[in-house]
Amino acid sequence: MAPDSFKESMTAAEAAAAISAGVRTVFPDAQCVEVPMADGGEGTTDALVSALDGRWRMISTHDALGRPIEAGYGLTPDGLVIIEVASAVGIGQINPDERDVLHSSSLGVADLVRDALDNAANRFIIGLGGSATTDCGAGMLAGLGVKWLAADGSELAPNPAALADLDRADLSGLDPRLADVEIDLACDVTNPLLGPHGSAAVFGPQKGAGPDDVRYLDGILEKVAEALVAAGAPDVREEPGAGAAGGLGAAFLAIGARMRRGAEVVAEAAHLAEAIDGADFVLTGEGGMDFQTLSGKTPAGVADVAGRYGVPVIAFAGTLGRGADDLVGRGFEAVVPIMPGPGTLADALADGPNNLERAAATAMRLIKLGAAG
Amino acid sequence: MAPDSFKESMTAAEAAAAISAGVRTVFPDAQCVEVPMADGGEGTTDALVSALDGRWRMISTHDALGRPIEAGYGLTPDGLVIIEVASAVGIGQINPDERDVLHSSSLGVADLVRDALDNAANRFIIGLGGSATTDCGAGMLAGLGVKWLAADGSELAPNPAALADLDRADLSGLDPRLADVEIDLACDVTNPLLGPHGSAAVFGPQKGAGPDDVRYLDGILEKVAEALVAAGAPDVREEPGAGAAGGLGAAFLAIGARMRRGAEVVAEAAHLAEAIDGADFVLTGEGGMDFQTLSGKTPAGVADVAGRYGVPVIAFAGTLGRGADDLVGRGFEAVVPIMPGPGTLADALADGPNNLERAAATAMRLIKLGAAG
Repeated sequence: MAPDSFKESMTAAEAAAAISAGVRTVFPDAQCVEVPMADGGEGTTDALVSALDGRWRMISTHDALGRPIEAGYGLTPDGLVIIEVASAVGIGQINPDERDVLHSSSLGVADLVRDALDNAANRFIIGLGGSATTDCGAGMLAGLGVKWLAADGSELAPNPAALADLDRADLSGLDPRLADVEIDLACDVTNPLLGPHGSAAVFGPQKGAGPDDVRYLDGILEKVAEALVAAGAPDVREEPGAGAAGGLGAAFLAIGARMRRGAEVVAEAAHLAEAIDGADFVLTGEGGMDFQTLSGKTPAGVADVAGRYGVPVIAFAGTLGRGADDLVGRGFEAVVPIMPGPGTLADALADGPNNLERAAATAMRLIKLGAAG
Repeated sequence: MAPDSFKESMTAAEAAAAISAGVRTVFPDAQCVEVPMADGGEGTTDALVSALDGRWRMISTHDALGRPIEAGYGLTPDGLVIIEVASAVGIGQINPDERDVLHSSSLGVADLVRDALDNAANRFIIGLGGSATTDCGAGMLAGLGVKWLAADGSELAPNPAALADLDRADLSGLDPRLADVEIDLACDVTNPLLGPHGSAAVFGPQKGAGPDDVRYLDGILEKVAEALVAAGAPDVREEPGAGAAGGLGAAFLAIGARMRRGAEVVAEAAHLAEAIDGADFVLTGEGGMDFQTLSGKTPAGVADVAGRYGVPVIAFAGTLGRGADDLVGRGFEAVVPIMPGPGTLADALADGPNNLERAAATAMRLIKLGAAG
């Protein structure tokens, strides 16, 4: 049972439990191994905290506009830390009429990283995605000890407006503990940092940037990246995913992180392969499945692992979107919708666990029928 | 493939074709035998015309209020006639603000019966249900030659208002051809003609009868029934279904018809058992399935036949209602909803054939998976 969350309806752990319950309705003696999954986006911390008996830790930090908030991250018994950058600097924290990308900073992410280092973190999974920022991670790096300096040596605030005066970076104060930890970036986009496919052009508008802002932000991203290279960091501007989370991807890459597919890094951390090896079936799913599912969404990542072990995959979805029919044969044996009839999205969200349990039971009945015939 | 219609979305024949298409997606060599089904209600003529290579015949007749309309019935090559009483005197023909049950008559049904007799009918299936009338079939009998007489010998119009003066019936003019045909009534209610569970009390209000009207109509039904008995017809007042279609049930019973469960008589006429004998699976379904399904709805009738041959039944439904989960194990191996996600009823109706085809394909994939494992 390795589903993603069904957004706004069930966490991945709740979805896995619902599937198990459905399976046991038909096969009471089935051994149901629940591995809540995610793809690096929302729900990643929840999934891995559940899968690895970890815990949530809440701290006081700041949102992208610098306002105090509580934000959480996950910590497992063996020192794996799971941070979703959006938990601190997420676009969801900021009302549409308050959005101000020129003054938005990723500084809050550094508080989560430092607190985790204080708590014996030895490995990080960083879920990139959903950030309100386009600061090339300048805020996050500032919070970890990097100084952004003007030509006159004065230190600049780490936001796109202030960084217009950026002349150089000073990396000498970077938290030395970062050298001793592994950082895996869980990411579902491959955008480079700059240019027409870069962070400002592609993701700026949804953060409130107009056309002039996009051009300005692209220039700031370039300045920050050049300052990092000049200070001795690797040049990561063209790396796939450097443009994720307003350039937080580039910032993490610059301090040695590895960019990976989100579903893959979560699967590895959750020991999904060990759970799948020898299973009869893998049951996965997500709130919505469509042609984008194959672009690194959780069910596709689960199907990749299952495919290596030759275990058939059945997926459940709250909504089958365009292209969902094409998923069959591309890693999935069947894609099963869970809605019992016409109804609103609100009903679907409220009834998600029941619907999923029923759909899992129905699928098992059909499998059993096939086995009997 | 023996589904009922999915009301307002697909005829039974269209539903059967959609299921076949879904099955063949997965099992290209499957032998898909399509037997469109019905339970005596709306769609019965369509289903049997499709199942038996029959044809529709349209004639000019009158609705329950006596207004000219075109109404149709079905006629098969071997002389089976299928009439839905609602096609002539249906409640759906009459706007709510025009309803006048005291002046509503089943006369139009007789035109269908006589036209069928003129066209070499040797057997009838009469779908009772949905009538606008509560005249004990007095109109229908009048159209077939029965005279309703006042004490002074004058002939009365066959509607509840006029029949207040009823003294006796004269059956001597009844069309003699009726003696040579079999009439099966396809009915899904078991109400007697009179009293608190009778036609006026139970179905009168939905035809526009107020409490005083119900009492009056119950009296008229009794008068008509007594007149028939006095004229030599059998006493059918307590027979289950005598109260169907405003007492048309009683009228047909009085002239020798047999009252049967709708799904059973349709299954027999469509040779469903012969199609099921030796099949691997029976696939049925209906727009909505719920706790009422077991009360004589088409999928339950199909499941009864399949049960006799030990063939497993899978049902598909546009909407799973209350109690649908309890259908499993009571004739059904699985009940599969066809909606791909949240959506309006209008969308569900428009997309019905695609959704049904997809659901059938998905069910077959799961069966195949079970067979492979």
